[in-house]
Amino acid sequence: MSEKRESGSFEAAAGNGLLHRRLFLAHGAALLGAGGMGLLSARPAAAAPLEVPAWMKAPGTPMSAYGQPSKYESDVQRVVGGTPNVVGNGVSFTPHHRLHGTITPNSLHFERHHSGVPDIDPQQHRFLIHGAVRRPLTFTVDALLRYPTVTQIHFLECAGNSGSNLAPQPPQAPCGVIHGLMSCSEWTGVPLSILMDEAGVDRSAGWVLAEGGDAAAMSRSVPLAKIMDDAIVALYQNGERLRPENGYPMRLFLPGYEGNMNVKWLRRLQVTTAPTMTRDETSHYTDVLLNGKALILTYPMEVKSVITNPSTGLTMQGPGLYEITGLAWSGLGKIARVEVSADGGRSWADAALSEPVLSKAFTRFRMPWRWDGGPAILESRAIDETGAVQPTRESIVSERGERQNYHNNAIQAWSIAASGEVGNVYA
Amino acid sequence: MSEKRESGSFEAAAGNGLLHRRLFLAHGAALLGAGGMGLLSARPAAAAPLEVPAWMKAPGTPMSAYGQPSKYESDVQRVVGGTPNVVGNGVSFTPHHRLHGTITPNSLHFERHHSGVPDIDPQQHRFLIHGAVRRPLTFTVDALLRYPTVTQIHFLECAGNSGSNLAPQPPQAPCGVIHGLMSCSEWTGVPLSILMDEAGVDRSAGWVLAEGGDAAAMSRSVPLAKIMDDAIVALYQNGERLRPENGYPMRLFLPGYEGNMNVKWLRRLQVTTAPTMTRDETSHYTDVLLNGKALILTYPMEVKSVITNPSTGLTMQGPGLYEITGLAWSGLGKIARVEVSADGGRSWADAALSEPVLSKAFTRFRMPWRWDGGPAILESRAIDETGAVQPTRESIVSERGERQNYHNNAIQAWSIAASGEVGNVYA
Repeated sequence: MSEKRESGSFEAAAGNGLLHRRLFLAHGAALLGAGGMGLLSARPAAAAPLEVPAWMKAPGTPMSAYGQPSKYESDVQRVVGGTPNVVGNGVSFTPHHRLHGTITPNSLHFERHHSGVPDIDPQQHRFLIHGAVRRPLTFTVDALLRYPTVTQIHFLECAGNSGSNLAPQPPQAPCGVIHGLMSCSEWTGVPLSILMDEAGVDRSAGWVLAEGGDAAAMSRSVPLAKIMDDAIVALYQNGERLRPENGYPMRLFLPGYEGNMNVKWLRRLQVTTAPTMTRDETSHYTDVLLNGKALILTYPMEVKSVITNPSTGLTMQGPGLYEITGLAWSGLGKIARVEVSADGGRSWADAALSEPVLSKAFTRFRMPWRWDGGPAILESRAIDETGAVQPTRESIVSERGERQNYHNNAIQAWSIAASGEVGNVYA
Repeated sequence: MSEKRESGSFEAAAGNGLLHRRLFLAHGAALLGAGGMGLLSARPAAAAPLEVPAWMKAPGTPMSAYGQPSKYESDVQRVVGGTPNVVGNGVSFTPHHRLHGTITPNSLHFERHHSGVPDIDPQQHRFLIHGAVRRPLTFTVDALLRYPTVTQIHFLECAGNSGSNLAPQPPQAPCGVIHGLMSCSEWTGVPLSILMDEAGVDRSAGWVLAEGGDAAAMSRSVPLAKIMDDAIVALYQNGERLRPENGYPMRLFLPGYEGNMNVKWLRRLQVTTAPTMTRDETSHYTDVLLNGKALILTYPMEVKSVITNPSTGLTMQGPGLYEITGLAWSGLGKIARVEVSADGGRSWADAALSEPVLSKAFTRFRMPWRWDGGPAILESRAIDETGAVQPTRESIVSERGERQNYHNNAIQAWSIAASGEVGNVYA
């Protein structure tokens, strides 16, 4: 391997130690090894003969019907946050700072419930399509399981995700709590266009009311165009039937739209000529502006990214080479680019994106960084295929103020102290 | 909508009721609904007002830290098969006939253990690279977690998967038992090319011995070329850390290669100048031929597919429109086409493939079928991007006989009786 290629592999890409992403691209890995001996601060030890550990001296535990995580990972859990005095109202957060890849395991998918998780008997559950249709239809679960299906990987993000970063002071909480109201799964279900056509929908009607089978009868208005485009009645998540907290036996899934509209425990769709103006789209899930008015019926979750590692609560282990990695997504399509800065936004370089880059799905990005042990501010900025650029917190606050909690897709900045401590800052 | 488009949507594509896959392609769904009123035998009922069920009358259960399936799905489990008198030796099967999509949930990923699941303390585990290297290296788990990573969706298939279909009589077992020693996950880990280069591997050596940390010290020889190409030390599966039964805290992952070589609980890689000829590549995981000789060191799992629904043990619910769906995969690359037959292989038509079609990963295929209520034999046949075509059972048996159990990628035929019963047949 030539000197030129070796030096090329550690080419600076932006300020404060950011290296060129080609270190992580195909065949770049070999360059790192050949050129990087000893640069990895996670330096392995020279080899000594291996001890034979206790667990190799007797047979282990047998096969099992339904597996669970290692007991050594029992602290990798959703963080539960409830609302005092309102039974079943609250959230739980996906611990993204402890996870990697793009798929969220079903057991760790975030939750947002308004009146708890209903215990639905699938044999008794009914799903009704009615309103402006020629032939109102009622489906049992078994009937729906017979219909043609589609399979799609998509993120789901609560409109309130990252809302705590609009508070006057940056919360010193883990990444998975600040940004843990989002997850990404492979969803399989029945295209709603099939069911709506079978019911003889009046395509001029324009709107659909979706109602859930929980005690809150959580309800939202959805444009009929979205229902006829890529909406599904989801029956399976990451291969298995939906979990109870994700809408078992069925939920509405609207790729790219705010989480709350993806109505769980789906009970009925009523075709209407106008939005119904339900409680959850008037008193909640609206954006209160500086002038006191509110934006309502704002649906797609816009382009966004977050560095999951390093992030608050994690500690750097001395100067050296690190992988900066995180997630990027857009409710409007595919991620086109993710830029990373290590100097608080003064200079930026393109991160490597993990293939396949899918529309309205998490994209994992990676950036090699040689930390010199000094202070640094890490940021990521995503651009989607429509050309939309993830905004700064400053621009969001200047337009909408700090009174609203929804649709915060601002750039996240993490501070690295010389001590190795990672914090949340408004850069 | 014109008469022409309506009739076109139900165009026959092959014998015995197979319809054109465009019914399931983009915008084809709408044709189905408009033209297909009443053709779906899973016909929904005309609507009556919905009752308010018991679970809407009081708040449900609160948020939880680590979710579990609905109690109504508690029978969706791995089927455990052990070897009498050999502690910890056996398998468990993924119930593919109860799943959908392409990702297998971690809790249902198949198992094959030779001496049970070791209870490994990640703080004590060590991973050694030695042999023909300039600098032998020992890694702790924490050190390895600092290295650059890649994320890839890949299937894993045991060489013995579908082996029971080489018995003289077709087993009348569920699809998930006959073909349940395969699963598909998103794997995240460290490219081995990085670690091997850091150790200063002798690239002319040619081979690597991989040893697991179970009580069987399960060991296999791997070509060094594969290690330097796309092999990883996997640390995360479907977002979370590996499960104990899948090699926690780390496993070797060799995309497309037979499951047994993807050594779990990875403990050491020794670079060698020849295959080591371990027990598991000589007495097992070899293909005994008609002349008594055996093929050994046969690695890629070749092109294959199976219809998961309808399949044995499931029952048809009367004549009408059905979705035939299943999985296709190849250890040599992407799936190019999947053909389906409803008349025992006399005529074939192309199935719709779910996007994205990824290399060495499950691809979900779908085919619309109007069952007339008479006898039928359903088959699927996959072709990969190298042009390899899934073979018949007859051709495999004529070459290798019925004495071997490994690498059976033959076409699976399911019989449909007039009663609706589905069986396993050698067509």
